[in-house]
Amino acid sequence: MKFQNLDTCTAFAQLSSLSPCSVKEALSTERIGSYTIHTGGDLTYNYASMPVDNEIIQSLQQLSIEQQLIEKYTELLNGEIMNPGEKRLVLHQLTRGQVLHDVIAEGENKGAFYQSQLARIQEFSKQIREGSILGSTGKRFKTVVQIGIGGSDLGPRALYLALKGWCTSKDIVQLDAKFISNVDPDDAEEVIRGLDFETTLFILVSKSGTTLETLTNRDLVIEAIKKSGIEGIDASKHMIAVTSKTSPLASSSSVLEAFFIDDYIGGRYSSTSAVGGVILSLAYGYDIFDQVLQGAHEVDGLALEKDITKNASLMDALIGVYLRNVLNLPTTAILPYSQALSRFPAHLQQLDMESNGKHVNRDGELLEYATGPIIFGEPGTNGQHSFYQLLHQGTDTVPLQFIGFSNSQYGKDILVEGSTSQTKLNANLVAQIVAFARGKDDPNTNKQFEGNRYSSLLIGKQLDARALGALLAHFENKVMFQGFLWNLNSFDQEGVQLGKVLASKVLDGCQGDEILKAYVDLF
Amino acid sequence: MKFQNLDTCTAFAQLSSLSPCSVKEALSTERIGSYTIHTGGDLTYNYASMPVDNEIIQSLQQLSIEQQLIEKYTELLNGEIMNPGEKRLVLHQLTRGQVLHDVIAEGENKGAFYQSQLARIQEFSKQIREGSILGSTGKRFKTVVQIGIGGSDLGPRALYLALKGWCTSKDIVQLDAKFISNVDPDDAEEVIRGLDFETTLFILVSKSGTTLETLTNRDLVIEAIKKSGIEGIDASKHMIAVTSKTSPLASSSSVLEAFFIDDYIGGRYSSTSAVGGVILSLAYGYDIFDQVLQGAHEVDGLALEKDITKNASLMDALIGVYLRNVLNLPTTAILPYSQALSRFPAHLQQLDMESNGKHVNRDGELLEYATGPIIFGEPGTNGQHSFYQLLHQGTDTVPLQFIGFSNSQYGKDILVEGSTSQTKLNANLVAQIVAFARGKDDPNTNKQFEGNRYSSLLIGKQLDARALGALLAHFENKVMFQGFLWNLNSFDQEGVQLGKVLASKVLDGCQGDEILKAYVDLF
Repeated sequence: MKFQNLDTCTAFAQLSSLSPCSVKEALSTERIGSYTIHTGGDLTYNYASMPVDNEIIQSLQQLSIEQQLIEKYTELLNGEIMNPGEKRLVLHQLTRGQVLHDVIAEGENKGAFYQSQLARIQEFSKQIREGSILGSTGKRFKTVVQIGIGGSDLGPRALYLALKGWCTSKDIVQLDAKFISNVDPDDAEEVIRGLDFETTLFILVSKSGTTLETLTNRDLVIEAIKKSGIEGIDASKHMIAVTSKTSPLASSSSVLEAFFIDDYIGGRYSSTSAVGGVILSLAYGYDIFDQVLQGAHEVDGLALEKDITKNASLMDALIGVYLRNVLNLPTTAILPYSQALSRFPAHLQQLDMESNGKHVNRDGELLEYATGPIIFGEPGTNGQHSFYQLLHQGTDTVPLQFIGFSNSQYGKDILVEGSTSQTKLNANLVAQIVAFARGKDDPNTNKQFEGNRYSSLLIGKQLDARALGALLAHFENKVMFQGFLWNLNSFDQEGVQLGKVLASKVLDGCQGDEILKAYVDLF
Repeated sequence: MKFQNLDTCTAFAQLSSLSPCSVKEALSTERIGSYTIHTGGDLTYNYASMPVDNEIIQSLQQLSIEQQLIEKYTELLNGEIMNPGEKRLVLHQLTRGQVLHDVIAEGENKGAFYQSQLARIQEFSKQIREGSILGSTGKRFKTVVQIGIGGSDLGPRALYLALKGWCTSKDIVQLDAKFISNVDPDDAEEVIRGLDFETTLFILVSKSGTTLETLTNRDLVIEAIKKSGIEGIDASKHMIAVTSKTSPLASSSSVLEAFFIDDYIGGRYSSTSAVGGVILSLAYGYDIFDQVLQGAHEVDGLALEKDITKNASLMDALIGVYLRNVLNLPTTAILPYSQALSRFPAHLQQLDMESNGKHVNRDGELLEYATGPIIFGEPGTNGQHSFYQLLHQGTDTVPLQFIGFSNSQYGKDILVEGSTSQTKLNANLVAQIVAFARGKDDPNTNKQFEGNRYSSLLIGKQLDARALGALLAHFENKVMFQGFLWNLNSFDQEGVQLGKVLASKVLDGCQGDEILKAYVDLF
């Protein structure tokens, strides 16, 4: 396997010499029909409004070959050490099913290990949902509260919210789910004060079992349970853990049950492991979580395709690098036309920015090109009444990633002035893509739209569990391919360490650091 | 009054010649002590970690003088037409109190008009909260639901969430508040299905009274009330409107009551008008809303100070232009260390990007410099476990705007390992500022932090109603001053129009536009 920086690639030099396609001029019905790739979960990726033409696509294909993207993905799937800084395998795809060979590490078949945890989650969630495991005062559990932060919060929360309407529309029995993440005590209190502890199960999620925020919030919860004065309640019978086998949480007698992940599942890639699986299975039932896994697994398999015009996440990744490194565009907006995806952009923000926000390559050499972009976004149509002004008429070009679905989740819709809300929603989505691409001339420059503002579109039939899994895996694989393109280690996060060290110094009285002390004194 | 482009200013040429201060080297306890400005609501703005020194500050002061920032603000307060494209006055500051002269327009004293609406809101909310106005089936109102989008949603929602914990800690009687914004029918259904219509009051918020999303969602609600089969329920007695006097909603017999705003309050600046005032007064009582107004009014008065070292929003604005136009940094992150401010970044995203995301000046001339930045953000410490990786070690510099408070809202906190959660929260905040500024050398480049990543800090004693009003006005005034610096009209939003026109064409069957049709066919 050859690891090389992007700017040493022949294909990148070639790509850099090519002018972007003017979407304003080139956009045509033919292009919309042909610049489209079907992927898993009944999703389709359309890139007709991206500034690429067949010549650029050929260069991108060459770049994919030269950077050995599919070979690297294959090695990753087969258990090579793709997180070199931490000397770890990268196995989140394996949590949803085996794509290629068995992966053996530390004398264990890792696929079998993840499967065994899934089987335990299936059984445990069934018992909780059926009431064969009860709370310590004999009542059935009605509410689950996930205590976790970062990857133990954003992904699971986004997925939970994404499926609520769809599960409701299918009359699926639901346990209510809530989340505590921030060390801000108001975050915990806001959740705690509405709880009936007798019917609540807390899920402590921390791979290391040492995350400051999570342990602190656990202690806040235990204190609140103690103070509740409920006779006979035993906090330890209302807590389960998702952690690694060697963590302090795993061996603790203070939890009812523990489910395991390992070091080969990065936090931001852990939604399809026990980290997301336990809460989704408790809230909606294991079958629903299994459908998420199926959608993701399907996309993982399709991502092995070498022809970039048939590989949605690979094409998305390559176009992203063209935007970032040839057109020098530093940001990307995620715009789901689905209120159920309200927190999905926040998850993708972590996934992308924590994976590829790096200034050195996988060998620790300083890079002289831009890496991961800044990711932000809010659902449409809401954003249209907010920050889209800048997207349309600001001085910077922001590439856009639209997401939409033919059908709503609840299906509760009416005709108003001849169209349903869902039709209005998608009419707006389509209109925005075209408005951004083509712009509008106007003698009044204040009403003029330059156009040539680039976007792609991921569409599905409906946001169901399988489509959601596919959507998640699409972006995970996109980010992985981009990491390979930039020659990064996308699977570590050394950038979070310094703050932790300095925070400890503050809590220890700053240890002679006057500047820390001066800032503390402002409070 | 002289309106000129930023790049024609002598002071800007001077400023552009100055190298940024190396925060990494210059940061000192003296600087932290002196680069600080007290403002309203007991807030303090500290800019010690911004790349400015006394020479740059002098240039910024000159720029403030040359662009007549305080004079323009004075004119705005006194009722000059500061939204020239729409030939409108800009009077959102007047909704919280009169700072300077009477403003007379259309034969009416506008301050008196806004006051009269406040008095009506005070009386109406008292009657609802006391139960002297009941629902159509004789029950007391317990829940209020705001139906609005953009400025009628993001600001009011952010403020409502921001005060929930504080009001709860003070045992203030609360009506539960919910929001419906998106035309996605799942957004309405998710709220509607949990409602007891007999005890719910809907607030329809649309200045024009013609907003597609809002009218559609109103109709969805009315349909759901009809279908509920509740005997004797009359939907019109469960709806009030916030709109302009001439709008279709105002004269409608289908609402219980209507409160008025006018064209001089832009949507994104309307949180302190009836748009935010009705829901906050219903949920928490008018007194709480009045304290928000007081905090904002206090800051509005202080923003008249000509010495930039004593004017927090002015300094913030000027430093922002230095970052954007001299250092060419295109984004800014808003990082509140307060879970209560979870949706405040989304509001500021609209406020800033819709106001200053413009490519022409107030006279419609194309600009050759960058204007409003891209704004995004999430609460800390959550973000530390997410996108901060890129902020610390990515290839782009993102200026940061931290917000923090000495005390939590609920005050429900415990010692864990010797410190409270609130102390941990603020220890992290301080540690991040210093980590970003000073970085860290490490022989392992993957663990190296370049430093010189800029931030400012807004801190207060506690996020109470007055502090919240002050915080809101600080950013509104910052954005206003930046608009003056860039010579923009910050108060129109022509960029949202084209999408609306094209969406209508889609709903009308695309009217021969094949490209629209081709995209529609993807669904």
